[in-house]
Amino acid sequence: MTNDEIRFGTDILKQADVLATFTEDAPRVTRTYCSKEHKLAGDYLIGLMRDAGMSAGYDAFGNIVGRYEAGVPFAPVVMTGSHQDSVRNAGKYDGLFGILSPIACVKELNRQGKRLPYTLEIVGFGDEEGVRFGVTLIGSKAMAGNFDPAWLEKKDANGVRMREAIAAFGGDPDAWQSLDRRNEGHGEVVAFVESHIEQGPTLLNENLALGVVTAIAGATRMTVRVTGLAGHAGTVPMNVRQDALAAASEMILFVERHCRENGSLVGTVGRIAALPGAINVIPQDVEFSVDVRSGDDLMRRSAIEAIQAEFSEIAKRRGVRVEANPYFELNAAPCDPDLQQQFADAIAAQGIPVRHLPSGAGHDAMEFPKVCPIAMLFVRCGNGGISHHPSETMTAEDADIATKALLHFFENYQPRAFVASAAQRVDRS
Amino acid sequence: MTNDEIRFGTDILKQADVLATFTEDAPRVTRTYCSKEHKLAGDYLIGLMRDAGMSAGYDAFGNIVGRYEAGVPFAPVVMTGSHQDSVRNAGKYDGLFGILSPIACVKELNRQGKRLPYTLEIVGFGDEEGVRFGVTLIGSKAMAGNFDPAWLEKKDANGVRMREAIAAFGGDPDAWQSLDRRNEGHGEVVAFVESHIEQGPTLLNENLALGVVTAIAGATRMTVRVTGLAGHAGTVPMNVRQDALAAASEMILFVERHCRENGSLVGTVGRIAALPGAINVIPQDVEFSVDVRSGDDLMRRSAIEAIQAEFSEIAKRRGVRVEANPYFELNAAPCDPDLQQQFADAIAAQGIPVRHLPSGAGHDAMEFPKVCPIAMLFVRCGNGGISHHPSETMTAEDADIATKALLHFFENYQPRAFVASAAQRVDRS
Repeated sequence: MTNDEIRFGTDILKQADVLATFTEDAPRVTRTYCSKEHKLAGDYLIGLMRDAGMSAGYDAFGNIVGRYEAGVPFAPVVMTGSHQDSVRNAGKYDGLFGILSPIACVKELNRQGKRLPYTLEIVGFGDEEGVRFGVTLIGSKAMAGNFDPAWLEKKDANGVRMREAIAAFGGDPDAWQSLDRRNEGHGEVVAFVESHIEQGPTLLNENLALGVVTAIAGATRMTVRVTGLAGHAGTVPMNVRQDALAAASEMILFVERHCRENGSLVGTVGRIAALPGAINVIPQDVEFSVDVRSGDDLMRRSAIEAIQAEFSEIAKRRGVRVEANPYFELNAAPCDPDLQQQFADAIAAQGIPVRHLPSGAGHDAMEFPKVCPIAMLFVRCGNGGISHHPSETMTAEDADIATKALLHFFENYQPRAFVASAAQRVDRS
Repeated sequence: MTNDEIRFGTDILKQADVLATFTEDAPRVTRTYCSKEHKLAGDYLIGLMRDAGMSAGYDAFGNIVGRYEAGVPFAPVVMTGSHQDSVRNAGKYDGLFGILSPIACVKELNRQGKRLPYTLEIVGFGDEEGVRFGVTLIGSKAMAGNFDPAWLEKKDANGVRMREAIAAFGGDPDAWQSLDRRNEGHGEVVAFVESHIEQGPTLLNENLALGVVTAIAGATRMTVRVTGLAGHAGTVPMNVRQDALAAASEMILFVERHCRENGSLVGTVGRIAALPGAINVIPQDVEFSVDVRSGDDLMRRSAIEAIQAEFSEIAKRRGVRVEANPYFELNAAPCDPDLQQQFADAIAAQGIPVRHLPSGAGHDAMEFPKVCPIAMLFVRCGNGGISHHPSETMTAEDADIATKALLHFFENYQPRAFVASAAQRVDRS
């Protein structure tokens, strides 16, 4: 592809470069919820939205909302977007690409004077990463009716409450219920679609620019405690040891093997500690974490059961004790098959083989299944798939083709059933 | 066995109880080199030695030395003993039993008016554990000619140099060369024998009170560094991961398996750390320790080679890097076959099946092979074989039978070759 053929990608990457300058700790990129930099990034995005022909502004929680009104009356709403905030020392595309790419689509539609059979709303969620208050997905939770007002009292590292931060930003923390898109008054939301950098290496390794997400994975997290018996490294023969670390090693390898052999699973042991932790003492107490994810909740739950059963077997055989109790569970958010097919068509229209893949990471879209069908488009992540890191990369070519595919989706999406339903409602009124 | 038959065991355990009161942190037992408590314990032991019919006092390094002179002229010396110092929060028998038991033997010989064809020296080494100055086996190193005078400048936690501590104790740090028993003037040392609590469960598990040590194990220690690639726990598929902790787990299990399958080896991974150490991040850097011991140096060296080779294989297969470099190596101290046989005879004379076993822990005896043949008698350790811990136990029955076996050894040992050699030397003069 020559540079001449790039219609959107170059501009989008330049916009991402500008947004990266709105950071709390330059030259690193860090932008948290309701910060000064959130405001700078929001004002910039609102400017881009207006320039693209949209009405735009902040909602009561500092979410950035732009509307491109439908070309027909009583039209439903299709929402798209992603988050404006970042982790500490972040890359430039996680979240922001999913705001910039649809703005480019609307700008093109507007340039052509083309309206859609639905109102397109683009949202820049104020918070997804949860860095400031330890609550993730604040923006999408509020909009999807999953917000717990008790979170308003959570404090950041400086003791500032979320309630105070939202008010200082110019928002209204007590208006959280008004954001719930399941309520009347906003227009009926018939789909939420999100474009996002993959944050993994699957598309990169398969030399594909785009992919259709099948589901946002559910997750189970456990803390595992193995209790053996300490002993002198020199004096206790191998066959009578109750070595907690050797037992844990076998368990860790089982997590890996089970997840490797079972398609859609990923399983990770990221933390481990062994006590007493001396070179010449057999470990007595080992604690480690297990994180298992899958787009398929049944498969994840049966994996957790298999892991717990095997851990018990290993412990029994080795004469150690094990506790492996889940303390966190999140169900998968499956993507709508019909919307997946429409994204597949949009990808195929770019001349690219269609790859379906699950999302192991969480995204704003995962909050919306209670509101409407969801779907996600993944864009290739360079540098081995690294994300949440300054070396996260996306090429202008990929940004471009992803935007063309998204535009193809917007141009072809037909909210038939919901138009009828909206019409019926009007009829009843 | 009824209590009436215990001739030595009850007294020895009472003496050990008294010695446990000479501690730096009561109610715990901690007694370090050249401390006030070293002096109290030494004075008590010297009293016991004199009461048993020996001449006794401190040498220039604070070692407690008692002599029971031979019944013949030009007699060589048999040395026995163990250490008076302890680890922090120690048990009561590690070290001390090897001083108290031979004192009980001499007391009995003296009661019978019996002299031996050699001078019996009992030594209470000032330091074996190395707690105060980070140098282990100070007493036996000095006596065996393995002392490095640079160690005199080592400081304890309060900044006191070893040199100053020895002088304050009433010793003479610069007299270290005079302690070397390879020098003329002390009498020729023809054997060093040590009685010691096993500090492991082998005799306990086999229901045996005593065992003959085949060798004091040699050891190799390595620090192993595994370098993989960090990644998001949700987004990196299992088959492209370079998980440093999964690789390390496989390595840890290989150490265990290899040592389990190869008779005299023990191998321990006591320390492990994984970075970045987050629940949702694949570990990139893992560091762990490996401690391998064996009474057979060739087997230990070939185990280290096998471990290094397998670690490389595992790393290659998993796409991670590994460094596994030994930073400490100590050769085994084999026990003399003839002395082992004499201890076996002494055990058999108590009506006990003879068990030979290696010592995985280090002991004072290991410093003496350059001076003379060595041997060790192991005594059953209760409570699962736990030692270096307050719950270390020895029964009065076991203390008794161990002392009877040691006495049998002393009464039957004939230093023939060396008597001849001493006589020849006199002839030449």
